[in-house]
Amino acid sequence: LGTLKRPSEIIAEETGTSVAALSGPNHAEEIARDMPSATVVACTDEAVARRLQAALISDLFRVYTSTDIVGVEFCGAAKNPIALAVGMSDGLGFGDNTRATLITRSLVELGRVGAQLGGNTATFVGLAGIGDVIATCTSRHSRNRLAGELLAKGESPAQVEAKVGQVVEGIPTAYALHDMAAAFGIDLPVTENVYQVLAEGKSPAECVRSLMGREPTHEVSGD
Amino acid sequence: LGTLKRPSEIIAEETGTSVAALSGPNHAEEIARDMPSATVVACTDEAVARRLQAALISDLFRVYTSTDIVGVEFCGAAKNPIALAVGMSDGLGFGDNTRATLITRSLVELGRVGAQLGGNTATFVGLAGIGDVIATCTSRHSRNRLAGELLAKGESPAQVEAKVGQVVEGIPTAYALHDMAAAFGIDLPVTENVYQVLAEGKSPAECVRSLMGREPTHEVSGD
Repeated sequence: LGTLKRPSEIIAEETGTSVAALSGPNHAEEIARDMPSATVVACTDEAVARRLQAALISDLFRVYTSTDIVGVEFCGAAKNPIALAVGMSDGLGFGDNTRATLITRSLVELGRVGAQLGGNTATFVGLAGIGDVIATCTSRHSRNRLAGELLAKGESPAQVEAKVGQVVEGIPTAYALHDMAAAFGIDLPVTENVYQVLAEGKSPAECVRSLMGREPTHEVSGD
Repeated sequence: LGTLKRPSEIIAEETGTSVAALSGPNHAEEIARDMPSATVVACTDEAVARRLQAALISDLFRVYTSTDIVGVEFCGAAKNPIALAVGMSDGLGFGDNTRATLITRSLVELGRVGAQLGGNTATFVGLAGIGDVIATCTSRHSRNRLAGELLAKGESPAQVEAKVGQVVEGIPTAYALHDMAAAFGIDLPVTENVYQVLAEGKSPAECVRSLMGREPTHEVSGD
């Protein structure tokens, strides 16, 4: 946090080796129980990605290759503040419409940051992007989603982390996305509202009013 | 069914008027209960879309404009066979990973057909596309998802329709997508497996083996 570096960048700097990243809708509990899953393995060297694909693929674990390690790593981190937002919506008693809207508009936001970082738009609509976002945001087991629910009930970020009892990655990641949005001059309405809840004590109910009250716009070009 | 025409085409032919289409993650039950929702209103005449936006927008219903009526209408129909596939996965006892994978890869398929029809890719990753797919596929109230669950339990399409007691749109739509895939020469692995369950009595468990056993590939270019 502060460097805005991805894990693979830090590992490559420290070790001098090239690094691949694997990400997707991959709850370990379900893979261990032989439920069919799919994932993306990304490496700038496509031959390495193909070797990892061959090593990992099975009848129950479908592995796709990608050369977009930037997009794959970024999505794996940036999905967690979305899960916080969806958890807040659940905590406020909202339903499928609100959740689906938050996920969809958040993906538009991630795509904006990802493009600035040099990621490929196709990754954001792929398994490591929308796939992992769906698995995380609709799972009862997601601790980030649960943390959002507790925030909506009025608990502070510190109380939430104590209650969840595990790292809530979405909290530091929301701070990192706030820094990135400022650095790139990009508007990220959903993730910025998550940041304001965490850093400024804004209430989730007030976030709803902010998000719904913005100027009417066009779907593709607008916010 | 058979003409492969969209409703707006038929209405325009019969009435001679221009038509707009509204679609998104919009369960009516939730809108009626004042839960925040968002939608897309599409018309080839953007001025008409903007007038409809102004007429419909409220603090709890956010309306985005679009000129891509083809994509909006196509997604509204094509999401239902995806919900059948997700329901089958649920019926087989699979979890979040399998569901998220089916949704993500199905969107790739829809994008292929939609591009042939002249739809805009952005619509497929927007509220009328991925947004509506998420709301439909993760809702316990979706009758198409429920129908898929019953198919996985071994019921026939006729038994499923009788038990659901309402129109299961995904069934005729799977036949229409099968015709479109043949007409355009496009490979649609997920929706084609849904068709085979409905039309040829293939078992959902066998579909899993077909889908997971295909050749390893690249995420963006491949199947």
